[in-house]
Amino acid sequence: MKRLFFVLVLLWLPEAVYAQAETAASPALEAARSYRTAHGAEILADFATLLALPNVGSDSAGIHRNADFIKAAFEKRGARIELLKLPGAPPLIYGEIDTPGATRTLGIYVHYDGQPVDESRWTHGPWQPTLYTASMEHGGQPRPMPQPGDPIDPEWYLYARSAGDDKAPLGALLPALDALHEAGLALTSNIKFLFDGEEEMGSPHLAQYLDRYADRYADVDVWLFCDGPVHQSRRAQLVFGVRGVTGMEVTVYGATRALHSGHYGNWAPVPGFLLADLLSSMKNETGRVLIEGFYDSVAPIGEVERMALTRLPSYDETLRQELGLARTEGEGATLAERLLLPSLTVKGLSSGNVGPRARNIIPASAMATLGIRLVKGNDPQAMLDLVEEHIRKQGYHIVREDPDHATRLKYPKIAKVRRGGGYPASRTPMNLPIAQRVVAAMADAAGEAPVVVPTLGGSLPLYLFTDRLGKPALIVPIANHDDNQHAPDENLRIANLWYGIDLYAALLTMP
Amino acid sequence: MKRLFFVLVLLWLPEAVYAQAETAASPALEAARSYRTAHGAEILADFATLLALPNVGSDSAGIHRNADFIKAAFEKRGARIELLKLPGAPPLIYGEIDTPGATRTLGIYVHYDGQPVDESRWTHGPWQPTLYTASMEHGGQPRPMPQPGDPIDPEWYLYARSAGDDKAPLGALLPALDALHEAGLALTSNIKFLFDGEEEMGSPHLAQYLDRYADRYADVDVWLFCDGPVHQSRRAQLVFGVRGVTGMEVTVYGATRALHSGHYGNWAPVPGFLLADLLSSMKNETGRVLIEGFYDSVAPIGEVERMALTRLPSYDETLRQELGLARTEGEGATLAERLLLPSLTVKGLSSGNVGPRARNIIPASAMATLGIRLVKGNDPQAMLDLVEEHIRKQGYHIVREDPDHATRLKYPKIAKVRRGGGYPASRTPMNLPIAQRVVAAMADAAGEAPVVVPTLGGSLPLYLFTDRLGKPALIVPIANHDDNQHAPDENLRIANLWYGIDLYAALLTMP
Repeated sequence: MKRLFFVLVLLWLPEAVYAQAETAASPALEAARSYRTAHGAEILADFATLLALPNVGSDSAGIHRNADFIKAAFEKRGARIELLKLPGAPPLIYGEIDTPGATRTLGIYVHYDGQPVDESRWTHGPWQPTLYTASMEHGGQPRPMPQPGDPIDPEWYLYARSAGDDKAPLGALLPALDALHEAGLALTSNIKFLFDGEEEMGSPHLAQYLDRYADRYADVDVWLFCDGPVHQSRRAQLVFGVRGVTGMEVTVYGATRALHSGHYGNWAPVPGFLLADLLSSMKNETGRVLIEGFYDSVAPIGEVERMALTRLPSYDETLRQELGLARTEGEGATLAERLLLPSLTVKGLSSGNVGPRARNIIPASAMATLGIRLVKGNDPQAMLDLVEEHIRKQGYHIVREDPDHATRLKYPKIAKVRRGGGYPASRTPMNLPIAQRVVAAMADAAGEAPVVVPTLGGSLPLYLFTDRLGKPALIVPIANHDDNQHAPDENLRIANLWYGIDLYAALLTMP
Repeated sequence: MKRLFFVLVLLWLPEAVYAQAETAASPALEAARSYRTAHGAEILADFATLLALPNVGSDSAGIHRNADFIKAAFEKRGARIELLKLPGAPPLIYGEIDTPGATRTLGIYVHYDGQPVDESRWTHGPWQPTLYTASMEHGGQPRPMPQPGDPIDPEWYLYARSAGDDKAPLGALLPALDALHEAGLALTSNIKFLFDGEEEMGSPHLAQYLDRYADRYADVDVWLFCDGPVHQSRRAQLVFGVRGVTGMEVTVYGATRALHSGHYGNWAPVPGFLLADLLSSMKNETGRVLIEGFYDSVAPIGEVERMALTRLPSYDETLRQELGLARTEGEGATLAERLLLPSLTVKGLSSGNVGPRARNIIPASAMATLGIRLVKGNDPQAMLDLVEEHIRKQGYHIVREDPDHATRLKYPKIAKVRRGGGYPASRTPMNLPIAQRVVAAMADAAGEAPVVVPTLGGSLPLYLFTDRLGKPALIVPIANHDDNQHAPDENLRIANLWYGIDLYAALLTMP
């Protein structure tokens, strides 16, 4: 299986970024490997300590505890760390490591906040890191954390919120620094750290932080974004772009209060049906969004990117099998192709209650949370305008707060629309010299050439760096694709933590 | 306002059931009134004690505590009470009061269980009865329970689960018996009580109870069903029929697990959109159900019923204003007309999370709980068959449990359908002699002729009595229409408790 993939990779890797994939392991990599072999249990224990700190963005005290912990950990490794602060914002962790003689500065981005949790749906507490012998889906069983010296199976999974997204890079960077230090290997770049504390909330203050502290990051030559999963085939992955993100909440209304479904059923409007009609009007069965203009602003991709796209490994069928999908959206288009278009999804639906708590009522309202992913060319607010205009065309009067009585009596159909923020997509050109060096470091760490992807499906506030600061930004993910990121039972496969340590050791010492 | 209604009532009351609406208050009524004037605080305190007992059907211990309390309370008033039991069923409370010389036996039905609660949406705990100076919607404020001798404002509202549905009749029957006893007034009928402990779960064992204990109820001549609200105009109401009820839960599926909306959005099916399409196909904008055959089995109403219908007070406009509705379903048909057709409503919707807990995922499934109200002619299971057939016609493969992996990979669209039980509608002919006596007792208690309604929108297992036992059944509701029954902040307006006491005193002594 591994051999087959390797051959495929050689075939589809775009020439522009192709680099020597079959070098002998570098001294840095050997240092990383021997360090994690000797100290595996301690690395896992330290990582679990970090994962045990609740880090939902809305929990300010928790976020600060994380920031303090991370500051202390990096200071211990000789970095100068400062918690930058803006009113009402979580701290942005600034850090620097000066390397004598270095002529290049790497910016390293990680976010230390995590997605909100629905604790009732987690097998263990989201902040009770729990080690499993394999993934839960594949029959893994909980097991104790290893003791120093115990052998460690790289197929173990560690479950906790942010295990994959996005504390994994922190859990790998620290031992990578330790490994290089222990082996007496010098870094080859100056390093600037930027650890974001509100990425899962859409990084609403990141632009302001970058404006305010522009001088600290002015010398960064290239940004390495440490977030997201590797390829679904488990191969190393290098990504040149991300989709942007925005969204909205839509609430539609029935009567001012929940009504008895017997006494009023057939006469009072049913919010669940109103919402169903509205959502149904937005997208057809094949997954095409029917909102007027939704695809109009999409910027066409370039030739190198198109070539990279055609050379991506075909993993759709495996994924479809794994996810239990008899069909996918887009009439046969590949996942990689579909990621080059904006998407509209229903992240949540709610009206009344279901299951044992369902009551015989017509609920007073129904709500949908819509997620929109953006590609190059889409402006977040302009896209929300299109959705709003579509809702209006379905006969709705749009309000921003729950309607008052007079408004209810005036308009037959009322939708409360709460617009989200978000940010646009971003793409770094694929044919830069630095990209070759990063590919080589990746190949070094992974033992094979990475998958090179024009655009990741997920979103990062990369546009701030590529479009506003005008610097290249490469995404170097380490987490496993099946890490349940954003969902209950988030996890990190230990092999991916090991890969992260190896990768950072290679990147920090690349020529 | 009262005067106007009175005139209207005289105009629309069907001749067949019209009775002397302007009699002087009877001795029983005078007894009831002077008793509740003297003992108002104690009546409210006793009622609050009953309301403080949690009574959700799934809470067996709570249900038994209610049954024991009710047994003791009625035994104290000289009734012989027995808790009938069937395996796995809540107790059915059987009671009897023999009246020397009586030639008629009244069956009195009440249910003592309540709808499930979503405690987070209640202003006070559902089982912490709280008295308000008016309804919350009209600016009422909490106030202490009155002390013996305090004046009691009939516009006070008492908030608690089952305050209206359906402990109110128990809270009124007990003082009615006390009042007659204190005044030395004899009952005019033998009485048989049947207090149901699982009505809100669809009374799944009631038929079995009636079969098993048929002899105890064999002598009942007419059933009085004490449940539901009076007319929306606050006028007394006598009802000759009810809609039946059934329903189902429908779950549609995306991938086997929640997916990151960025990495998979535009490729993985979105359960929220699938469910929206499915629900949207079931009903059009005007409220007409599009499921084939949905209206085919409706039995036409009779001439007396049609006449009663045309003479019902037009209250729709007031209700529309009160409920903040700019439009209603049915293209201008009245609520009373609409209740003569089966209804399809969405009782609940759920997929992922909304609001602050929404996450950037494509949920793994989406669920809708559908409620169906039935009219004369509709068989519950046959109606569910029609809905299932409709779902099939939309391309769904129907399963009864969550689909396994092979099933997911085989069928592009899968719906799990969980069918509910329920029971058919029921109607008692409007031109029976006993109906005239009940109308007279109602007019006595209310001081004006009641609204006479062919069919209530809500559901009661009345068919067991009218269709299986072949006895007439009349519904004599006492609760206010704005009692939030089945919803958070359920309540009873004190004036309606007073009316209940007066009404039962009149009914227990009617000639």
